[in-house]
Amino acid sequence: MSGAAPFAYAGLDRVFHERARLGIVTSLAGHADGLGFSELKTLCGLTDGNLARHLQVLEEAGFVTQAKDQDGRRAITRCRLTAMGRTRFADYLAALEAVLQQARAHEAAADNAASKTRPA
Amino acid sequence: MSGAAPFAYAGLDRVFHERARLGIVTSLAGHADGLGFSELKTLCGLTDGNLARHLQVLEEAGFVTQAKDQDGRRAITRCRLTAMGRTRFADYLAALEAVLQQARAHEAAADNAASKTRPA
Repeated sequence: MSGAAPFAYAGLDRVFHERARLGIVTSLAGHADGLGFSELKTLCGLTDGNLARHLQVLEEAGFVTQAKDQDGRRAITRCRLTAMGRTRFADYLAALEAVLQQARAHEAAADNAASKTRPA
Repeated sequence: MSGAAPFAYAGLDRVFHERARLGIVTSLAGHADGLGFSELKTLCGLTDGNLARHLQVLEEAGFVTQAKDQDGRRAITRCRLTAMGRTRFADYLAALEAVLQQARAHEAAADNAASKTRPA
């Protein structure tokens, strides 16, 4: 957040930052036992194709696993956040929080500047 | 944030959410008088090409203006957040804050669940 390019936001890992993946990972973060593909699809409002594509990105990064579980006669795909995924997501959220604070501070500074130049 | 797809995050406008543009807009939000192209490039750690491309997206959305200002003999491009850009960015930040709170709540819920299943 500091250094030569204070607004480069390198801490915002693009794997988590993409909007659909942010929804997927937040859903999974609350479910230690994982979520089924269909549940996840409904929670995140995604199509099968989109969800599959984003899960693949998350799996390739090592943040999510997909396993076939037997549910009675049906095999269902269950998605879980890995331990590394959980740790790295916590780092991402901390970076996001810092960005939000920086943005709020900038908003406030601009508001102050505007009120000073406004006629009394 | 509620309804059928509570993790769809429709409020996270992709124009602001993209990491480089988030840096650009946060920089501009703190400078009511705008910033020169070169300053902005340095602050955000972007190349000329990347900054130009992202500014174009922001300009097309009506969130940013680019104007040629005369600085002595040189013409410099000065970038400013529009009033609409400022309003919509505030909306985006509110949506982001809600996402962050939801993610934190999910993290906490998973931690609680884990501590309950852990042997005493």
